[in-house]
Amino acid sequence: MAVRHERVAVRQERAVRTRQAIVRAAASVFDEYGFEAATVAEILSRASVTKGAMYFHFASKEELARGVLAEQTLHVAVPESGSKAQELVDLTMLVAHGMLHDPILRAGTRLALDQGAVDFSDANPFGEWGDICAQLLAEAQERGEVLPHVNPKKTGDFIVGCFTGLQAVSRVTSDRQDLGHRISVMWNHVLPSIVPASMLTWIETGEERIGKVAAAAEAAEAAEASEAASDE
Amino acid sequence: MAVRHERVAVRQERAVRTRQAIVRAAASVFDEYGFEAATVAEILSRASVTKGAMYFHFASKEELARGVLAEQTLHVAVPESGSKAQELVDLTMLVAHGMLHDPILRAGTRLALDQGAVDFSDANPFGEWGDICAQLLAEAQERGEVLPHVNPKKTGDFIVGCFTGLQAVSRVTSDRQDLGHRISVMWNHVLPSIVPASMLTWIETGEERIGKVAAAAEAAEAAEASEAASDE
Repeated sequence: MAVRHERVAVRQERAVRTRQAIVRAAASVFDEYGFEAATVAEILSRASVTKGAMYFHFASKEELARGVLAEQTLHVAVPESGSKAQELVDLTMLVAHGMLHDPILRAGTRLALDQGAVDFSDANPFGEWGDICAQLLAEAQERGEVLPHVNPKKTGDFIVGCFTGLQAVSRVTSDRQDLGHRISVMWNHVLPSIVPASMLTWIETGEERIGKVAAAAEAAEAAEASEAASDE
Repeated sequence: MAVRHERVAVRQERAVRTRQAIVRAAASVFDEYGFEAATVAEILSRASVTKGAMYFHFASKEELARGVLAEQTLHVAVPESGSKAQELVDLTMLVAHGMLHDPILRAGTRLALDQGAVDFSDANPFGEWGDICAQLLAEAQERGEVLPHVNPKKTGDFIVGCFTGLQAVSRVTSDRQDLGHRISVMWNHVLPSIVPASMLTWIETGEERIGKVAAAAEAAEAAEASEAASDE
Protein backbone atom coordinates (compact mmCIF):
# COMPACT_ATOMS: atom_id res chain seq x y z
CA MET A 1 0.00 0.00 0.00
CA ALA A 2 2.71 2.45 1.05
CA VAL A 3 4.64 1.76 -2.16
CA ARG A 4 1.54 2.35 -4.29
CA HIS A 5 0.86 5.69 -2.52
CA GLU A 6 4.41 6.72 -3.16
CA ARG A 7 4.09 5.87 -6.87
CA VAL A 8 0.90 7.93 -7.15
CA ALA A 9 2.63 10.86 -5.44
CA VAL A 10 5.60 10.64 -7.82
CA ARG A 11 3.28 10.51 -10.81
CA GLN A 12 1.32 13.54 -9.54
CA GLU A 13 4.51 15.48 -8.98
CA ARG A 14 5.66 14.66 -12.50
CA ALA A 15 2.30 15.86 -13.89
CA VAL A 16 2.62 19.15 -11.99
CA ARG A 17 6.14 19.65 -13.37
CA THR A 18 5.06 18.87 -16.94
CA ARG A 19 2.13 21.26 -16.63
CA GLN A 20 4.45 23.97 -15.33
CA ALA A 21 6.92 23.41 -18.18
CA ILE A 22 4.06 23.77 -20.68
CA VAL A 23 2.78 26.99 -19.08
CA ARG A 24 6.27 28.53 -19.07
CA ALA A 25 6.88 27.54 -22.70
CA ALA A 26 3.47 28.87 -23.73
CA ALA A 27 4.19 32.13 -21.90
CA SER A 28 7.51 32.60 -23.69
CA VAL A 29 5.84 32.03 -27.08
CA PHE A 30 2.87 34.34 -26.29
CA ASP A 31 5.28 36.99 -25.05
CA GLU A 32 7.28 36.81 -28.26
CA TYR A 33 4.53 36.42 -30.88
CA GLY A 34 1.22 37.37 -29.21
CA PHE A 35 -1.76 35.04 -29.01
CA GLU A 36 -2.75 35.06 -32.68
CA ALA A 37 0.66 34.33 -34.19
CA ALA A 38 1.70 31.82 -31.50
CA THR A 39 1.66 28.17 -32.66
CA VAL A 40 1.09 25.05 -30.58
CA ALA A 41 4.01 23.43 -32.44
CA GLU A 42 6.43 26.11 -31.15
CA ILE A 43 5.07 25.72 -27.60
CA LEU A 44 5.54 21.91 -27.73
CA SER A 45 9.06 22.35 -29.02
CA ARG A 46 10.03 24.81 -26.25
CA ALA A 47 8.38 22.68 -23.54
CA SER A 48 9.93 19.47 -24.93
CA VAL A 49 6.64 17.60 -24.44
CA THR A 50 4.41 15.61 -26.78
CA LYS A 51 1.12 16.84 -28.18
CA GLY A 52 -0.64 14.19 -26.07
CA ALA A 53 0.96 15.47 -22.87
CA MET A 54 -0.11 19.02 -23.67
CA TYR A 55 -3.70 18.08 -24.52
CA PHE A 56 -3.89 16.10 -21.26
CA HIS A 57 -3.48 19.45 -19.45
CA PHE A 58 -4.86 22.02 -21.94
CA ALA A 59 -7.53 21.42 -24.58
CA SER A 60 -6.54 24.34 -26.84
CA LYS A 61 -4.25 27.31 -27.41
CA GLU A 62 -6.90 29.49 -25.77
CA GLU A 63 -6.85 27.32 -22.64
CA LEU A 64 -3.06 27.66 -22.58
CA ALA A 65 -3.40 31.44 -22.64
CA ARG A 66 -5.93 31.26 -19.80
CA GLY A 67 -3.50 29.03 -17.90
CA VAL A 68 -0.81 31.73 -18.25
CA LEU A 69 -3.24 34.46 -17.14
CA ALA A 70 -4.36 32.40 -14.12
CA GLU A 71 -0.76 32.31 -12.83
CA GLN A 72 -0.04 36.06 -12.92
CA THR A 73 -0.07 36.63 -9.19
CA LEU A 74 1.33 33.24 -8.08
CA HIS A 75 5.03 33.81 -8.64
CA VAL A 76 5.57 37.13 -6.88
CA ALA A 77 6.36 36.71 -3.17
CA VAL A 78 7.42 39.96 -1.51
CA PRO A 79 10.07 39.46 1.20
CA GLU A 80 9.05 40.72 4.65
CA SER A 81 10.67 44.01 5.48
CA GLY A 82 9.22 45.19 8.79
CA SER A 83 7.08 47.81 7.00
CA LYS A 84 3.94 46.96 5.07
CA ALA A 85 4.16 50.27 3.15
CA GLN A 86 7.68 49.29 2.03
CA GLU A 87 6.34 45.87 1.01
CA LEU A 88 3.75 47.57 -1.21
CA VAL A 89 6.54 49.51 -2.94
CA ASP A 90 8.60 46.30 -3.11
CA LEU A 91 5.69 44.47 -4.76
CA THR A 92 5.75 46.95 -7.66
CA MET A 93 9.56 46.65 -7.80
CA LEU A 94 9.33 42.84 -8.03
CA VAL A 95 6.67 42.99 -10.75
CA ALA A 96 8.82 45.53 -12.64
CA HIS A 97 11.71 43.02 -12.36
CA GLY A 98 9.37 40.28 -13.62
CA MET A 99 8.33 42.45 -16.58
CA LEU A 100 11.97 42.29 -17.71
CA HIS A 101 12.78 38.67 -16.84
CA ASP A 102 9.70 36.50 -16.25
CA PRO A 103 7.91 35.22 -19.40
CA ILE A 104 4.74 34.51 -17.39
CA LEU A 105 4.36 38.17 -16.34
CA ARG A 106 5.44 39.50 -19.75
CA ALA A 107 3.00 37.25 -21.61
CA GLY A 108 0.23 37.99 -19.09
CA THR A 109 0.31 41.73 -19.65
CA ARG A 110 0.40 41.23 -23.43
CA LEU A 111 -2.56 38.80 -23.37
CA ALA A 112 -4.54 41.08 -21.03
CA LEU A 113 -3.90 44.32 -22.97
CA ASP A 114 -3.82 43.24 -26.64
CA GLN A 115 -7.21 43.72 -28.29
CA GLY A 116 -7.06 40.62 -30.46
CA ALA A 117 -9.68 38.37 -32.04
CA VAL A 118 -9.97 36.34 -28.82
CA ASP A 119 -11.08 38.40 -25.84
CA PHE A 120 -9.35 37.51 -22.57
CA SER A 121 -10.81 40.38 -20.55
CA ASP A 122 -12.82 37.96 -18.36
CA ALA A 123 -9.50 36.40 -17.29
CA ASN A 124 -7.68 39.71 -16.69
CA PRO A 125 -5.40 39.79 -13.64
CA PHE A 126 -5.99 43.46 -12.70
CA GLY A 127 -8.65 42.82 -10.05
CA GLU A 128 -6.49 40.23 -8.34
CA TRP A 129 -3.45 42.52 -8.33
CA GLY A 130 -5.69 45.27 -6.91
CA ASP A 131 -6.78 42.94 -4.10
CA ILE A 132 -3.16 42.09 -3.25
CA CYS A 133 -2.28 45.82 -3.05
CA ALA A 134 -5.43 46.48 -1.02
CA GLN A 135 -4.47 43.72 1.44
CA LEU A 136 -1.02 45.26 2.00
CA LEU A 137 -2.54 48.75 2.32
CA ALA A 138 -5.09 47.53 4.90
CA GLU A 139 -2.35 45.84 6.96
CA ALA A 140 -0.22 48.99 6.71
CA GLN A 141 -3.19 51.11 7.76
CA GLU A 142 -3.76 48.97 10.87
CA ARG A 143 -0.16 49.69 11.88
CA GLY A 144 -0.53 53.43 11.23
CA GLU A 145 1.75 53.29 8.18
CA VAL A 146 -1.02 54.46 5.85
CA LEU A 147 -3.17 57.58 6.29
CA PRO A 148 -6.63 56.99 7.83
CA HIS A 149 -8.63 58.41 4.88
CA VAL A 150 -7.06 55.99 2.38
CA ASN A 151 -9.53 53.43 0.98
CA PRO A 152 -7.30 50.34 0.45
CA LYS A 153 -9.24 48.89 -2.50
CA LYS A 154 -9.55 52.23 -4.33
CA THR A 155 -5.87 53.03 -3.84
CA GLY A 156 -4.87 49.44 -4.67
CA ASP A 157 -6.76 49.57 -7.98
CA PHE A 158 -5.23 52.97 -8.72
CA ILE A 159 -1.69 51.66 -8.18
CA VAL A 160 -2.38 48.69 -10.48
CA GLY A 161 -3.76 50.93 -13.24
CA CYS A 162 -0.91 53.39 -12.92
CA PHE A 163 1.74 50.64 -12.91
CA THR A 164 0.11 48.98 -15.94
CA GLY A 165 0.32 52.19 -17.94
CA LEU A 166 3.89 52.98 -16.95
CA GLN A 167 5.06 49.52 -18.01
CA ALA A 168 3.06 49.71 -21.27
CA VAL A 169 4.47 53.12 -22.20
CA SER A 170 7.95 52.02 -21.07
CA ARG A 171 7.70 48.96 -23.35
CA VAL A 172 6.69 51.08 -26.34
CA THR A 173 9.23 53.85 -25.81
CA SER A 174 12.29 52.01 -24.39
CA ASP A 175 11.63 48.24 -24.51
CA ARG A 176 11.10 48.56 -20.71
CA GLN A 177 14.67 49.81 -20.12
CA ASP A 178 13.36 52.86 -18.20
CA LEU A 179 10.69 50.97 -16.23
CA GLY A 180 12.61 51.11 -12.94
CA HIS A 181 13.00 54.87 -13.27
CA ARG A 182 9.29 55.28 -14.08
CA ILE A 183 8.19 53.22 -11.05
CA SER A 184 10.45 55.29 -8.83
CA VAL A 185 8.89 58.51 -10.22
CA MET A 186 5.44 57.01 -9.61
CA TRP A 187 6.17 56.57 -5.90
CA ASN A 188 7.58 60.13 -5.65
CA HIS A 189 4.19 61.36 -6.86
CA VAL A 190 1.86 58.93 -5.08
CA LEU A 191 3.44 58.07 -1.72
CA PRO A 192 2.85 61.52 -0.12
CA SER A 193 -0.92 61.06 -0.44
CA ILE A 194 -0.82 57.54 1.06
CA VAL A 195 1.62 57.49 4.00
CA PRO A 196 2.26 59.96 6.86
CA ALA A 197 4.90 62.58 6.00
CA SER A 198 7.25 61.26 8.70
CA MET A 199 7.50 57.92 6.85
CA LEU A 200 8.47 59.41 3.49
CA THR A 201 12.21 59.42 4.12
CA TRP A 202 12.17 55.86 5.47
CA ILE A 203 10.61 54.11 2.52
CA GLU A 204 13.05 53.22 -0.26
CA THR A 205 11.61 54.12 -3.67
CA GLY A 206 14.75 54.52 -5.82
CA GLU A 207 15.10 52.22 -8.80
CA GLU A 208 18.14 50.52 -7.20
CA ARG A 209 15.57 48.97 -4.83
CA ILE A 210 14.57 46.58 -7.66
CA GLY A 211 17.87 44.70 -7.57
CA LYS A 212 17.80 44.45 -3.76
CA VAL A 213 14.24 43.13 -3.57
CA ALA A 214 14.72 40.71 -6.48
CA ALA A 215 17.86 39.27 -4.83
CA ALA A 216 16.05 38.90 -1.47
CA ALA A 217 13.08 37.20 -3.16
CA GLU A 218 15.38 34.78 -4.99
CA ALA A 219 17.26 33.95 -1.80
CA ALA A 220 13.97 33.28 0.03
CA GLU A 221 12.81 31.02 -2.81
CA ALA A 222 16.09 29.09 -2.81
CA ALA A 223 15.91 28.62 0.97
CA GLU A 224 12.36 27.31 0.66
CA ALA A 225 13.32 24.91 -2.13
CA SER A 226 16.26 23.46 -0.16
CA GLU A 227 13.99 23.09 2.90
CA ALA A 228 11.42 21.21 0.80
CA ALA A 229 14.19 18.98 -0.59
CA SER A 230 15.48 18.07 2.89
CA ASP A 231 11.90 17.15 3.92
CA GLU A 232 11.72 14.44 1.22
CA MET B 1 -6.49 85.28 -62.22
CA ALA B 2 -8.65 85.84 -59.13
CA VAL B 3 -11.11 83.21 -60.34
CA ARG B 4 -8.34 80.66 -60.89
CA HIS B 5 -6.93 81.29 -57.40
CA GLU B 6 -10.36 80.73 -55.96
CA ARG B 7 -10.73 77.45 -57.83
CA VAL B 8 -7.34 76.22 -56.52
CA ALA B 9 -8.38 77.15 -52.98
CA VAL B 10 -11.67 75.28 -53.32
CA ARG B 11 -9.87 72.23 -54.67
CA GLN B 12 -7.33 72.32 -51.82
CA GLU B 13 -10.09 72.62 -49.25
CA ARG B 14 -11.88 69.66 -50.80
CA ALA B 15 -8.65 67.61 -50.64
CA VAL B 16 -8.22 68.45 -46.95
CA ARG B 17 -11.82 67.41 -46.25
CA THR B 18 -11.43 64.14 -48.17
CA ARG B 19 -8.22 63.37 -46.32
CA GLN B 20 -9.91 64.04 -43.00
CA ALA B 21 -12.88 61.82 -43.90
CA ILE B 22 -10.46 58.99 -44.77
CA VAL B 23 -8.52 59.39 -41.49
CA ARG B 24 -11.74 59.36 -39.44
CA ALA B 25 -13.08 56.30 -41.27
CA ALA B 26 -9.74 54.50 -40.89
CA ALA B 27 -9.73 55.34 -37.17
CA SER B 28 -13.22 53.89 -36.66
CA VAL B 29 -12.22 50.66 -38.45
CA PHE B 30 -8.89 50.36 -36.56
CA ASP B 31 -10.72 51.03 -33.28
CA GLU B 32 -13.23 48.27 -34.01
CA TYR B 33 -11.01 45.60 -35.59
CA GLY B 34 -7.40 46.47 -34.79
CA PHE B 35 -4.73 47.02 -37.43
CA GLU B 36 -4.37 43.42 -38.62
CA ALA B 37 -8.05 42.62 -39.15
CA ALA B 38 -8.95 46.05 -40.61
CA THR B 39 -9.54 46.07 -44.38
CA VAL B 40 -9.03 48.91 -46.84
CA ALA B 41 -12.42 48.00 -48.40
CA GLU B 42 -14.21 48.69 -45.10
CA ILE B 43 -12.34 52.00 -44.68
CA LEU B 44 -13.28 53.09 -48.23
CA SER B 45 -16.91 52.18 -47.60
CA ARG B 46 -17.08 54.17 -44.34
CA ALA B 47 -15.30 57.18 -45.86
CA SER B 48 -17.44 57.02 -49.04
CA VAL B 49 -14.39 57.65 -51.21
CA THR B 50 -12.83 55.78 -54.13
CA LYS B 51 -9.70 53.68 -53.91
CA GLY B 52 -7.99 56.26 -56.12
CA ALA B 53 -8.85 59.10 -53.74
CA MET B 54 -7.47 57.12 -50.82
CA TYR B 55 -4.22 56.17 -52.55
CA PHE B 56 -3.74 59.82 -53.52
CA HIS B 57 -3.43 60.57 -49.78
CA PHE B 58 -2.17 57.27 -48.29
CA ALA B 59 -0.07 54.62 -50.05
CA SER B 60 -1.04 51.73 -47.75
CA LYS B 61 -3.01 50.56 -44.71
CA GLU B 62 0.14 51.13 -42.66
CA GLU B 63 0.33 54.75 -43.82
CA LEU B 64 -3.32 55.16 -42.83
CA ALA B 65 -2.52 53.92 -39.33
CA ARG B 66 0.41 56.34 -39.14
CA GLY B 67 -1.94 59.11 -40.27
CA VAL B 68 -4.27 58.29 -37.38
CA LEU B 69 -1.36 58.22 -34.91
CA ALA B 70 -0.03 61.56 -36.18
CA GLU B 71 -3.34 63.25 -35.30
CA GLN B 72 -3.57 62.11 -31.65
CA THR B 73 -2.85 65.46 -30.07
CA LEU B 74 -4.45 67.71 -32.71
CA HIS B 75 -8.11 67.46 -31.72
CA VAL B 76 -7.90 68.18 -28.00
CA ALA B 77 -8.08 71.91 -27.22
CA VAL B 78 -8.44 72.63 -23.51
CA PRO B 79 -10.64 75.68 -22.78
CA GLU B 80 -8.90 78.43 -20.79
CA SER B 81 -9.94 78.40 -17.16
CA GLY B 82 -7.81 81.00 -15.35
CA SER B 83 -5.69 78.26 -13.75
CA LYS B 84 -3.06 76.29 -15.64
CA ALA B 85 -3.20 73.51 -13.00
CA GLN B 86 -6.93 73.19 -13.66
CA GLU B 87 -6.23 73.09 -17.40
CA LEU B 88 -3.84 70.16 -16.85
CA VAL B 89 -6.62 68.28 -15.04
CA ASP B 90 -9.07 69.34 -17.77
CA LEU B 91 -6.74 67.98 -20.45
CA THR B 92 -6.97 64.49 -18.91
CA MET B 93 -10.76 64.91 -18.60
CA LEU B 94 -11.06 65.82 -22.29
CA VAL B 95 -8.90 62.89 -23.37
CA ALA B 96 -11.01 60.60 -21.15
CA HIS B 97 -14.10 61.97 -22.94
CA GLY B 98 -12.37 61.33 -26.27
CA MET B 99 -11.58 57.74 -25.24
CA LEU B 100 -15.34 57.17 -25.09
CA HIS B 101 -16.45 59.19 -28.13
CA ASP B 102 -13.61 60.04 -30.52
CA PRO B 103 -12.55 57.23 -32.92
CA ILE B 104 -9.21 58.95 -33.57
CA LEU B 105 -8.18 58.78 -29.89
CA ARG B 106 -9.66 55.29 -29.41
CA ALA B 107 -7.86 53.92 -32.48
CA GLY B 108 -4.64 55.73 -31.52
CA THR B 109 -4.35 54.06 -28.13
CA ARG B 110 -5.13 50.66 -29.67
CA LEU B 111 -2.54 51.10 -32.44
CA ALA B 112 0.07 52.36 -29.97
CA LEU B 113 -0.46 49.62 -27.34
CA ASP B 114 -1.30 46.49 -29.38
CA GLN B 115 1.80 44.37 -29.98
CA GLY B 116 0.88 43.29 -33.49
CA ALA B 117 2.91 42.16 -36.48
CA VAL B 118 3.48 45.77 -37.54
CA ASP B 119 5.32 47.84 -34.95
CA PHE B 120 4.06 51.41 -34.56
CA SER B 121 6.19 52.26 -31.54
CA ASP B 122 8.23 54.80 -33.55
CA ALA B 123 4.96 56.71 -34.15
CA ASN B 124 3.70 56.50 -30.54
CA PRO B 125 2.01 59.63 -29.24
CA PHE B 126 3.19 59.34 -25.61
CA GLY B 127 6.17 61.68 -25.91
CA GLU B 128 4.03 64.37 -27.53
CA TRP B 129 1.34 64.06 -24.83
CA GLY B 130 4.11 64.28 -22.22
CA ASP B 131 5.37 67.52 -23.83
CA ILE B 132 1.86 69.01 -23.77
CA CYS B 133 1.50 68.20 -20.05
CA ALA B 134 5.02 69.52 -19.38
CA GLN B 135 4.16 72.81 -21.13
CA LEU B 136 1.06 73.29 -18.93
CA LEU B 137 3.04 72.35 -15.81
CA ALA B 138 5.80 74.83 -16.67
CA GLU B 139 3.27 77.63 -17.22
CA ALA B 140 1.53 76.70 -13.95
CA GLN B 141 4.88 76.68 -12.15
CA GLU B 142 5.69 80.20 -13.40
CA ARG B 143 2.43 81.37 -11.81
CA GLY B 144 3.15 79.57 -8.53
CA GLU B 145 0.40 77.01 -9.14
CA VAL B 146 2.85 74.11 -9.16
CA LEU B 147 5.43 73.34 -6.45
CA PRO B 148 8.99 74.52 -7.17
CA HIS B 149 10.62 71.06 -6.98
CA VAL B 150 8.37 69.62 -9.71
CA ASN B 151 10.21 68.78 -12.94
CA PRO B 152 7.59 69.50 -15.64
CA LYS B 153 8.81 66.91 -18.16
CA LYS B 154 9.20 64.12 -15.56
CA THR B 155 5.79 64.81 -14.05
CA GLY B 156 4.21 65.23 -17.50
CA ASP B 157 5.52 61.84 -18.63
CA PHE B 158 4.33 60.29 -15.38
CA ILE B 159 0.79 61.65 -15.87
CA VAL B 160 0.71 60.29 -19.43
CA GLY B 161 1.87 56.82 -18.34
CA CYS B 162 -0.55 56.73 -15.43
CA PHE B 163 -3.48 57.90 -17.58
CA THR B 164 -2.60 55.35 -20.28
CA GLY B 165 -2.76 52.50 -17.78
CA LEU B 166 -5.98 53.65 -16.14
CA GLN B 167 -7.73 53.85 -19.50
CA ALA B 168 -6.32 50.46 -20.59
CA VAL B 169 -7.43 48.72 -17.39
CA SER B 170 -10.77 50.55 -17.53
CA ARG B 171 -11.30 49.30 -21.10
CA VAL B 172 -10.55 45.70 -20.11
CA THR B 173 -12.61 45.67 -16.91
CA SER B 174 -15.58 47.96 -17.73
CA ASP B 175 -15.43 48.91 -21.44
CA ARG B 176 -14.22 52.32 -20.17
CA GLN B 177 -17.44 52.96 -18.21
CA ASP B 178 -15.47 53.69 -15.01
CA LEU B 179 -12.76 55.78 -16.69
CA GLY B 180 -14.06 59.09 -15.30
CA HIS B 181 -14.02 57.69 -11.79
CA ARG B 182 -10.50 56.34 -12.25
CA ILE B 183 -9.15 59.69 -13.53
CA SER B 184 -10.73 61.44 -10.56
CA VAL B 185 -9.04 58.95 -8.18
CA MET B 186 -5.75 59.57 -10.02
CA TRP B 187 -5.87 63.29 -9.26
CA ASN B 188 -6.77 62.62 -5.59
CA HIS B 189 -3.52 60.68 -5.35
CA VAL B 190 -1.25 62.81 -7.52
CA LEU B 191 -2.33 66.43 -7.14
CA PRO B 192 -1.07 66.83 -3.52
CA SER B 193 2.51 66.21 -4.66
CA ILE B 194 2.24 68.69 -7.55
CA VAL B 195 0.33 71.80 -6.37
CA PRO B 196 0.50 73.82 -3.13
CA ALA B 197 -1.91 72.53 -0.46
CA SER B 198 -3.90 75.78 -0.54
CA MET B 199 -4.88 75.09 -4.18
CA LEU B 200 -6.21 71.58 -3.56
CA THR B 201 -9.76 72.65 -2.74
CA TRP B 202 -9.92 74.99 -5.74
CA ILE B 203 -9.11 72.53 -8.48
CA GLU B 204 -12.08 70.49 -9.67
CA THR B 205 -11.13 66.82 -10.02
CA GLY B 206 -14.51 65.06 -9.72
CA GLU B 207 -15.66 62.97 -12.69
CA GLU B 208 -18.55 65.39 -13.31
CA ARG B 209 -15.85 67.77 -14.54
CA ILE B 210 -15.65 65.70 -17.76
CA GLY B 211 -19.10 66.78 -18.96
CA LYS B 212 -18.42 70.44 -18.15
CA VAL B 213 -15.07 70.56 -19.95
CA ALA B 214 -16.34 68.61 -22.96
CA ALA B 215 -19.29 71.01 -23.34
CA ALA B 216 -17.02 74.06 -23.04
CA ALA B 217 -14.61 72.62 -25.62
CA GLU B 218 -17.48 71.91 -28.04
CA ALA B 219 -18.87 75.43 -27.60
CA ALA B 220 -15.43 76.94 -28.28
CA GLU B 221 -15.06 74.80 -31.41
CA ALA B 222 -18.52 75.81 -32.67
CA ALA B 223 -17.78 79.50 -32.08
CA GLU B 224 -14.52 79.17 -34.00
CA ALA B 225 -16.26 77.41 -36.89
CA SER B 226 -18.98 80.07 -37.20
CA GLU B 227 -16.32 82.79 -37.07
CA ALA B 228 -14.42 81.07 -39.88
CA ALA B 229 -17.67 80.80 -41.90
CA SER B 230 -18.46 84.51 -41.52
CA ASP B 231 -14.91 85.34 -42.73
CA GLU B 232 -15.57 83.63 -46.09
